[in-house]
Amino acid sequence: MDVLRVSATSKSRALAGCIAGVIRNNGRAEIQAIGAAAVNQTIKAAAIARAFLELDGIDIVLIPSFTQVMIDGAEKSAIRFVVESREL
Amino acid sequence: MDVLRVSATSKSRALAGCIAGVIRNNGRAEIQAIGAAAVNQTIKAAAIARAFLELDGIDIVLIPSFTQVMIDGAEKSAIRFVVESREL
Repeated sequence: MDVLRVSATSKSRALAGCIAGVIRNNGRAEIQAIGAAAVNQTIKAAAIARAFLELDGIDIVLIPSFTQVMIDGAEKSAIRFVVESREL
Repeated sequence: MDVLRVSATSKSRALAGCIAGVIRNNGRAEIQAIGAAAVNQTIKAAAIARAFLELDGIDIVLIPSFTQVMIDGAEKSAIRFVVESREL
């Protein structure tokens, strides 16, 4: 499954639509965010996506963990979110 | 139940211990964070708390939503996290 990569400039509403789409199709999504601003956009997007998915009788939960990613040859700490669906 | 209020200067490891304690006792916690830095500290704390709770055979999931809070007479947007436990 593709990992949604979120940056500080990601639009939370657009990302919310993306999360909702992946959840509707797969029941599960994976998001990677580097830095406080990107983590914040991810959380706002997840809160909005919950409202979108409510109409489908679906709720989502987030499971965060630390991960290391390589950016331009340097190792950076990132947050990986597994997004799981469950019935409302 | 008390709401854990997280600020930008909250220490994520101390907060993680707090989350783990509330989850062990109640199976559920509620966290409120205002601003990107506070949201980031909350997520890092949750990732650390998952490691603490793994020894107890417990995992946690986060359910974020928007909420409004009054700070010094002004209404501010905040993120409310419900933290639920589930068996590993």
